Amino acid sequence: MSHAPESAPDAAQDRAPRPPAYGRRVRFLVEYDGAAFSGWQAQAVERSVQGDLERSLDALGPHGRVTAAGRTDAGVHALAMPAHVDLASRLNAEALRRAINARLAVDARIFALHDAPDDWHARFSCLWRAYRYDLLLTPEPSPLRRGRALWWPRPLDLASMREAAAALVGRHDFASFATQEERATVREVYSLGVRAAPEGVSILVAGESFLRRMVRGLVGTLLLAGEGRLDPRSVSGIIGARDRALAGPNVPPRGLYFVAGGYGPYPGERVFEAPPRWWPEGESV
Amino acid sequence: MSHAPESAPDAAQDRAPRPPAYGRRVRFLVEYDGAAFSGWQAQAVERSVQGDLERSLDALGPHGRVTAAGRTDAGVHALAMPAHVDLASRLNAEALRRAINARLAVDARIFALHDAPDDWHARFSCLWRAYRYDLLLTPEPSPLRRGRALWWPRPLDLASMREAAAALVGRHDFASFATQEERATVREVYSLGVRAAPEGVSILVAGESFLRRMVRGLVGTLLLAGEGRLDPRSVSGIIGARDRALAGPNVPPRGLYFVAGGYGPYPGERVFEAPPRWWPEGESV
Repeated sequence: MSHAPESAPDAAQDRAPRPPAYGRRVRFLVEYDGAAFSGWQAQAVERSVQGDLERSLDALGPHGRVTAAGRTDAGVHALAMPAHVDLASRLNAEALRRAINARLAVDARIFALHDAPDDWHARFSCLWRAYRYDLLLTPEPSPLRRGRALWWPRPLDLASMREAAAALVGRHDFASFATQEERATVREVYSLGVRAAPEGVSILVAGESFLRRMVRGLVGTLLLAGEGRLDPRSVSGIIGARDRALAGPNVPPRGLYFVAGGYGPYPGERVFEAPPRWWPEGESV
Repeated sequence: MSHAPESAPDAAQDRAPRPPAYGRRVRFLVEYDGAAFSGWQAQAVERSVQGDLERSLDALGPHGRVTAAGRTDAGVHALAMPAHVDLASRLNAEALRRAINARLAVDARIFALHDAPDDWHARFSCLWRAYRYDLLLTPEPSPLRRGRALWWPRPLDLASMREAAAALVGRHDFASFATQEERATVREVYSLGVRAAPEGVSILVAGESFLRRMVRGLVGTLLLAGEGRLDPRSVSGIIGARDRALAGPNVPPRGLYFVAGGYGPYPGERVFEAPPRWWPEGESV
């Protein structure tokens, strides 16, 4: 399909643990610059992160599909996207990481590759996903951050943004933030933080999963509140109305980063999470 | 000429204040991504920041050369390069900034444009210049920071780097760090800091001015110390030997940023310096 949800509803029949095909399952993290990708998911024609990874794996013997914690849209970046793949290669983890990276273009790199338990699944084992959206509040767009943040040259009222954010946190029916028809629109937002950064504002959101483009609609709604064009006290009503027209617009993908996916510990192994270096200081989810 | 010093020795005959040609002098800051420029200085054929700015100004009437605090080499970035130009345009500062930016490509932008006192000179009035060098210490090169930092996949001993840095601070004959023949090689390094960053190390250096490529040689020397290939206690001897072969190699330009130039206050006006947003937190020069 040409468009994939940022995190699609789970299909129960896919959840049953199966032994890894090709004898071995590995997991890893992927960093990518989303600018030149049509998104995570493999496409017939356009470049995708999944497609590039699978083409890179082709040289290393038989393998399955590469599965990620979230399927980001075109233009969305990832700092540490968890993924897994089943494969026949007997290369050790270090050699395998190098071999895959050697065949990737410069805008995607894998790291932290490990052998994974048979039932470890990048998508179904993922307990929480976190995204960051970067706004640049400078008088002119920044040459050094072009394509990496949304330039927003008008002042924002962070207190109003935070009040709106507080109303969005929790378990709600997020139909008002659904860009397309979705089977189920109830989601739980664990946290939604608005943080002043040296050159602008970063918005950090974590939840079990999100509707397609929901994060971009949440950010668009916070921006309306920050500009005084939406009363933060109306957010609960917007959620209740289940009407996409009432929430803010979807912001462009270039400021959006998949920053981390969280997994529970397996017996005898450490928690597999994105390295804390990617996490803005002082922010907790 | 095809190569310009990062900051050339002053020519005394150019220092005498002259009234601005074309009736008006403005100053501004320039941010640029150095990747596609052959450097600051206008070239016969290749793209330069100065050349792009002057072509942009051509549409606004007669003007002089654009003069900067420092003349960066090919590939070196700038977060806030101070510059001035004399021009005939009567546009107000805001309109002038917009008109210049409207004619620039996306990899350079000016900001903080103000009318300047007649004797304000971006180069000769500049009291100090600061550069930052970013090293990325991740297991794989970062797609999102490619062209913006030097990937250094081996561990560095920051204590050794700081010991070497301390020996470089002060007024010295830096002939051992001169890449080309220079008329005078004595310079004063005000500060040279090595700072652990979330993904790597940043090196921050400030001085009145620097020899051509001197900053990149200082960083290369600190890297040798950080790898244990150069004893920090030998740095004073390296300076004293006035032999370029003894200091470390010049690191590549992609990790180097001109971050700020400092100016004294003029009567009735505020200090004109780079905005503090560009300054890494907790670092002082």
